[in-house]
Amino acid sequence: MTDLILKKRHGQVLSEPEINWIIAGYVAERIPAYQISALMMAIYFQGMDATETNALVRAMIASGDTIDLSGIAGIKVDKHSTGGVGDKTSIVLGPMVAALGIPVGKLSGRGLGHTGGTLDKLESFPGFRIELEMGEFIRQVNEIGIAIAGQTAQLVPADKQLYALRDVTGTVENVSLIASSIMSKKLASGANAIVLDVKTGAGAFMETPEKAGELARAMVAIGQGLGRKTVALVTDMEQPLGNAVGNALEVREAIATLRGEGPEDLRELCLALGAEMLVLGGGAPTAEAARTQLEAVIASGRALEKLRHLVAAQGGDARLVDAVDELPGATHQSVLRAERDGYVTALHAGKVGIASMLLGAGRETKQSTIDLGAGIELRAKSGTPVRAGDPLALLHTNDATRLPEAQSVLRQAFTIGPEAPPLRPLVFERIS
Amino acid sequence: MTDLILKKRHGQVLSEPEINWIIAGYVAERIPAYQISALMMAIYFQGMDATETNALVRAMIASGDTIDLSGIAGIKVDKHSTGGVGDKTSIVLGPMVAALGIPVGKLSGRGLGHTGGTLDKLESFPGFRIELEMGEFIRQVNEIGIAIAGQTAQLVPADKQLYALRDVTGTVENVSLIASSIMSKKLASGANAIVLDVKTGAGAFMETPEKAGELARAMVAIGQGLGRKTVALVTDMEQPLGNAVGNALEVREAIATLRGEGPEDLRELCLALGAEMLVLGGGAPTAEAARTQLEAVIASGRALEKLRHLVAAQGGDARLVDAVDELPGATHQSVLRAERDGYVTALHAGKVGIASMLLGAGRETKQSTIDLGAGIELRAKSGTPVRAGDPLALLHTNDATRLPEAQSVLRQAFTIGPEAPPLRPLVFERIS
Repeated sequence: MTDLILKKRHGQVLSEPEINWIIAGYVAERIPAYQISALMMAIYFQGMDATETNALVRAMIASGDTIDLSGIAGIKVDKHSTGGVGDKTSIVLGPMVAALGIPVGKLSGRGLGHTGGTLDKLESFPGFRIELEMGEFIRQVNEIGIAIAGQTAQLVPADKQLYALRDVTGTVENVSLIASSIMSKKLASGANAIVLDVKTGAGAFMETPEKAGELARAMVAIGQGLGRKTVALVTDMEQPLGNAVGNALEVREAIATLRGEGPEDLRELCLALGAEMLVLGGGAPTAEAARTQLEAVIASGRALEKLRHLVAAQGGDARLVDAVDELPGATHQSVLRAERDGYVTALHAGKVGIASMLLGAGRETKQSTIDLGAGIELRAKSGTPVRAGDPLALLHTNDATRLPEAQSVLRQAFTIGPEAPPLRPLVFERIS
Repeated sequence: MTDLILKKRHGQVLSEPEINWIIAGYVAERIPAYQISALMMAIYFQGMDATETNALVRAMIASGDTIDLSGIAGIKVDKHSTGGVGDKTSIVLGPMVAALGIPVGKLSGRGLGHTGGTLDKLESFPGFRIELEMGEFIRQVNEIGIAIAGQTAQLVPADKQLYALRDVTGTVENVSLIASSIMSKKLASGANAIVLDVKTGAGAFMETPEKAGELARAMVAIGQGLGRKTVALVTDMEQPLGNAVGNALEVREAIATLRGEGPEDLRELCLALGAEMLVLGGGAPTAEAARTQLEAVIASGRALEKLRHLVAAQGGDARLVDAVDELPGATHQSVLRAERDGYVTALHAGKVGIASMLLGAGRETKQSTIDLGAGIELRAKSGTPVRAGDPLALLHTNDATRLPEAQSVLRQAFTIGPEAPPLRPLVFERIS
C-alpha cells in the first residue's frame, strides 16, 4: 500500500487491479484508514485520470449490492440533481415523462438537507407508502409507468466509508472523487440512462458555473465510460428554484406546474430536463420534438393524471392533488417585508434553505422529524422591483418559537439595491 | 483538526499553538492517525516554513524527556552524522576534541544499520560499559573530559510515532519533516552547540549533494532557530569512509588515525569536523587555528591517551588500544579479487554496507546480535589502479556460511573501467 501511495504521490496512474485491491482492502479493514487518507490527499494534489476514475467507480460499486431493474420493460432513465433549494423537479418530471411512456422507477434515499427529499415531500399525501418490496416496485412501474420509493439495499458501502473519512481529513474537494462518489451510487441503482442536473450558485456545492461544469464533465465521462447514456445540464441555484421551499409547499407548486400554472423557472427547467430524459429513453428523436410532447402532456392533463395514479398506487390520498388546501399546513405565519425601495439584486439560495430548515422543513440530524407544513413562499425573487413594506416572503411553521431566528436568516438572504441585477441564465451548459 | 488539514492543504501557515495542539493530541491519541497522515501528505505537497518547522521541533521535544547536561562545565558540542558506511569519526573526534579541553558527553542510541553504532564499536573493548547512570556520566565528563554512553531516556516519543506513520503512508520525503525528526532528538539531548555531518552519495539517505545541502540548511536553520550554534558540512558517502567497515575493524582504524596513521579521507574529515567543534566550543578562534591544534594533539599522542582514559573509565580493557590484534577477530577470511585490469571507477558504499551486514557486522532486526569481528577491509577504493587477480577487499566473519552471499554483493559494489574516475571532493559544502 505504501508503494501505491508513493506511486500516486509521484503523479503516476494507478491500474485497475491496484484500485480494486485498495478499495476491497479498505472495506475489509485490511488496509488502515491512515493509509487511505494519505492516498486521498495525494489524489487531491495529483488528480486521477479517466481510467483511474472509472476503475474507482467500478470498485466502489462492487463493494455492495446493485439494483436490478431488468424486470421493467423499456429504457429506464434516471434523473439526478446535485441538490439545491426549492428543487421539486422530480415530482413534476416523473409524472410528465411517465405519461409519455418512459418507465420511471425512482429509488431515493432520505438524506439530510434544508428541506426533505422527494420521499419526504410525497409523504405530504396522507397514507403515501414509500416502502415498497422490490417485486411490488417493479410491478407498479410496469402497470402504471411510475413508482417512487425508498432505497433500502446496501448500495456502495465503500463510498459511505470513504466519504466519512474524506470528510474529516480535508480530502473532499477533488472533482474525480466527488464525481465517483455520486456516480457510483447512481450506477448501482440500475438505470440504463442518466440525466444529471448539476447545480451552481450560492445554494449549490459548486458555486461557479466553471466548477459545476468541471464536475458535470467528470460525471458524464464516468457514466459513458461505464456504458450508460449520460447527459448533464449545469443549471442555476443562485436563488431557489420556483417560489416554494418546504415539503407540502413544494408539492403544491409541483402540482401547479403539472397544471401549466407553475413559476416560469421551474417549468422551464422541467421541460429542459424532461426533454433530455425523453430523448435518452427513446421517446422522441430530438430535444425540440420532446419539448412539444412535454408541453402537450401538461396541457392535456395527462401528466397530472399520472401523479394521481402514482399517489393512489402507493396508498396516498390522491384526492388532495385537486384539493391542495388539504395538504399539511402550518399554524403560524409571518411576513418578511422589504425595508426600502429598490430591486431584489440577490436572493441567496443557501440562506433561504437554512431559514426553511429553521422553520422545521428540513433535518438537522438523521433523527429530526420534519414539519411537512413548514417552509417559505417567496413573493419576490432576483430582479423583482419592491417598495418598502412590500412582502418579500411568507414564513410557515407549526412551532412559533422558530419564527424569529428564521426571519432573521431569511432577511440576510435578500439584498435590495437601486438597480435591477443582470439576468442569470437558467441553463449554463449542456454536456453529453 | 479537519480545518487545520485544509489550512495546510491550501498552503497556509500553521501557527505554533495549532502545531502544539496537533502533536499533543496525536501523542495523547485524541487525534486519529488518519488525520495526521492526511496532514503529512498535505505538508509533503505544500511544505512548511521556518516558523512552522521550529514550532514542530519544539512540540516534538515537549512530548518526552530532555537531557540536562548543565552539570557539565563548559560548552557542550555534539556531532551528529546522518549515517554512512565505515563512519568511525565519533571514536576519533571524541578523544581529539576532549584532549583539547572541549567536554564530550555523547549519548547514543543503538539503532539498526549496516554496521553497529558507536556504542557497538566501543564494545569491541572487552568490559566496556555503555550503561552509565546520569550522575556517573556527568561526573566522568567533568573528571576526564569524555564519556560515551547509551541513551535510555524517553526522548521525543512524538517523533517515534510520527516516523512510523510516515513510513507506511508515503510521507517520509519532505525535507522539513526529515530535518525536524533528526533535530528534535539532537536538541532534546542537551548539547549547547551542534556540528552536523550530512552525508551524500550512494551510501547516504540524500544521494545528491544538492538534496543533502537542502537537508543540511533545514537542520542548521532549526538548530539556530532554537538557539543553538549549529554548523553543517555536506560530505561524501559515495564510497565508504576509510578502508575498514565492521565494528572491531573500524576501532582499529580509528586508533590508527589517532596515531596519525589512518587513511587520508578519514583523517581529513575528522580534522574538518573537529575544527568546527573546537571553534563552536570556544577552543579556537578560527578553523585554521583549530586544525593546527588538532594536528598537534594527534602528533603529541594526547588524543590517543584520551581514548585510553575513556576506555578505562568505562571498564574496558585499555591495553588493547596498544594491542589491536587482541581486539575481537574473525575465524574466516576470504579475498575478493579484481576480474580484470583497470581502475576502480566506482565503489558503492551502500552495497559495501549490505555485504558487511551479511557477514554479521550489522543488525538486520533489533534482536540481531552483532559479530564484532566481522566486516570488510578495502584494499582498493575509487581511483585505485588494479590488475586482474589483485585483491580488492578482505572479508572477515565468524560464520563461514555467510561468505558466498556477502562476496557476491561486495563484487557488485566494485566497478572497474579503463580510466580513472574524476576525483570527488570530501566536503561539498559548509553551512552555518
